[in-house]
Amino acid sequence: MAFGWIGEQAELRRRAGLVRTLRPRAADTPLLDLASNDYLGLARHPEVTEGAARAARTWGGGATGSRLVTGTTELHTALERELADFCGFEAALVFSSGYAANLAAVTALAPHGSLIVSDAGNHASLIDGCRLARGGTRVAAHADPDAVRKALDGHDGPAVMVSDTVFSVDGDAAPLTALAAACREHGAGLVLDDAHGLGVLGGGRGAPHAAGLAGADDVVATVTLSKSLGSQGGAVLGPARVVEHLVNVARTFIFDTGLAPAAAGAALSALRLLRREPARAARAGEVARELHGRLTAAGLHAVRPDAAVVSVRAPSPEQAVRWAADCRAAGLSVGCFRPPSVPDGISRLRLTARADLSGAEIERAVQVVGETRP
Amino acid sequence: MAFGWIGEQAELRRRAGLVRTLRPRAADTPLLDLASNDYLGLARHPEVTEGAARAARTWGGGATGSRLVTGTTELHTALERELADFCGFEAALVFSSGYAANLAAVTALAPHGSLIVSDAGNHASLIDGCRLARGGTRVAAHADPDAVRKALDGHDGPAVMVSDTVFSVDGDAAPLTALAAACREHGAGLVLDDAHGLGVLGGGRGAPHAAGLAGADDVVATVTLSKSLGSQGGAVLGPARVVEHLVNVARTFIFDTGLAPAAAGAALSALRLLRREPARAARAGEVARELHGRLTAAGLHAVRPDAAVVSVRAPSPEQAVRWAADCRAAGLSVGCFRPPSVPDGISRLRLTARADLSGAEIERAVQVVGETRP
Ligand SMILES: Cc1ncc(COP(=O)(O)O)c(C=O)c1O
Ligand SMILES: Cc1ncc(COP(=O)(O)O)c(C=O)c1O
Repeated sequence: MAFGWIGEQAELRRRAGLVRTLRPRAADTPLLDLASNDYLGLARHPEVTEGAARAARTWGGGATGSRLVTGTTELHTALERELADFCGFEAALVFSSGYAANLAAVTALAPHGSLIVSDAGNHASLIDGCRLARGGTRVAAHADPDAVRKALDGHDGPAVMVSDTVFSVDGDAAPLTALAAACREHGAGLVLDDAHGLGVLGGGRGAPHAAGLAGADDVVATVTLSKSLGSQGGAVLGPARVVEHLVNVARTFIFDTGLAPAAAGAALSALRLLRREPARAARAGEVARELHGRLTAAGLHAVRPDAAVVSVRAPSPEQAVRWAADCRAAGLSVGCFRPPSVPDGISRLRLTARADLSGAEIERAVQVVGETRP
Repeated sequence: MAFGWIGEQAELRRRAGLVRTLRPRAADTPLLDLASNDYLGLARHPEVTEGAARAARTWGGGATGSRLVTGTTELHTALERELADFCGFEAALVFSSGYAANLAAVTALAPHGSLIVSDAGNHASLIDGCRLARGGTRVAAHADPDAVRKALDGHDGPAVMVSDTVFSVDGDAAPLTALAAACREHGAGLVLDDAHGLGVLGGGRGAPHAAGLAGADDVVATVTLSKSLGSQGGAVLGPARVVEHLVNVARTFIFDTGLAPAAAGAALSALRLLRREPARAARAGEVARELHGRLTAAGLHAVRPDAAVVSVRAPSPEQAVRWAADCRAAGLSVGCFRPPSVPDGISRLRLTARADLSGAEIERAVQVVGETRP
């Protein structure tokens, strides 16, 4: 039978305790959410949801075509202009997802004969970008500028180094200044995925801005509109000629329908709100540090957070799953990362620090995680 | 300089007359739209835009996380259930775009050691899926079941044949019954991208349904929510165990934020409207055939449409661009496809037949295309 082999794989997953199932949520649940990436708590902010509703009414339910045909509205252009300006880049290009933006940036900036140096902890979308790109890829040890130097050494032709700014699993930050120095020694470009930095670091303007790299002619950033901005979509930020290049060659731009107006409208409203109230960004970081401090004080093995993700080690995949389930039973929603979704095989609970968590909520979260520990 | 080579490529594009630029549109334009993929004219239907607005208010601006963490709402589940039911499949899985759905279906169904047979005219997202998949790929001549047979011959191990149902450039249909027969002779699965069939063929239920292939245990379909359904997003439809497999292994599902509630809400409203008023689907096909008949009568070289896309040959890329610009100057928006976005190097105008075009609008479109011909 055509798809018979699928059953065997399912059986192996079942035996390994690695079956994933979807858990649909209701619009209102009593669960305390430390699982989403809604770092600023903006996904349900009335300005953001009204931004979505207004855009749908004004522009329609969808963009109706590729960005190159009918899919670019004045709303997309406004979002691109304001995103670029806020993050400190010359230009921006909006995609239907952060995943698509990453595929575009990596493939378009790594032509035939070029070299990509990719951090070992990078997000799946960057890895898929490397696989799709015509250039060759060398994987460098995690957060290691000397490994990047070594990988670039002796390569002749265009080169880019690709890295998350904040790694999604452990929440640790990349050493941006040292990475940029390594790249510049070799004339290589730097592509930074700021999915977890935008809205949290640098007063919300993101990690490249905080590191003084935004706007440089050899730096490109990608962001997602789906985390701090509470919407959906992604963008590539960089020099205008890089954006023009992407418009002409990036397959996930050319052959994909433009981002839905409602998503563009929600993201633009969130961006304006963040610009007006930058204290939200700092608060997300504070909450993360407080969570980390209290979890550590309770004897848990948590990684010091550089942004808003707090990762707590679990002894095994099975125990991680049971731990997350026990948290949920106690009213707390947390993420559970385990193989094959982790680069190092280590399972963990993943807690996200929302800027709008109250002191009491933080306390309750720490208490539940501590009491349910395996 | 890091991205210096980009300037050289830009110069080559300029000399070849192949520069692409974005043309932002206003919310209301006097242009007659035969360029979008809004085949049923639903993108701006009040039920659809209200579906988007209501979903944003109820569920928030974004899904807030991966479908496996916080990104599955009851709205996503309802959309999946109703889509599967309408199209005649056991189960459905919704993605953030049709592009992501195609990457998921192809990569997840072509494991190491397997063979993908891919139609030479397939959409970029299927081609990228083949490039990302662990299995090997053989490209078969366009719409040629014997070529598929030959490609499958002698392969040992899992195999899938992958094809658009309606090809996006020329609007011609794949020979589904013969393709399915070829696959079944070899025990190969069939993956059909119904992006341009859903909402148009089979009373709107799509090409696999029309061909009696929906619901078969060796057939998987992918659809997009961004064309006939006037929204954004995509879905994979198939046996429940294939969907369960995707939930567990598809990287563009696991590592991507869930579809924004507004997009899910818009698509669900459009789907219900289509179910209630299936005559819209038939009407899109009628409009296409009428456009084709009149363009041919006017001496233009148009391809007979199998769905709602009408393709008209242009003598050269430059003349195609000028032709489309002249149409626009005369108040008509049409698509312009040229290298490298066409599989065969032939440039064409691409007209889409919206179900809600009036007789007078069809007449005006034909007149403008005829009068501006190079
Ligand atoms: C580091 C990183 N990059 C890219 C993405 C993809 O962004 P999106 O979900 O908007 O496709 C994610 C998460 O989903 C991420 O964590
Ligand atoms: C045949 C085909 N498949 C897939 C897609 C991708 O769908 P989406 O735009 O929803 O990503 C498109 C068009 O964009 C298409 O024409």
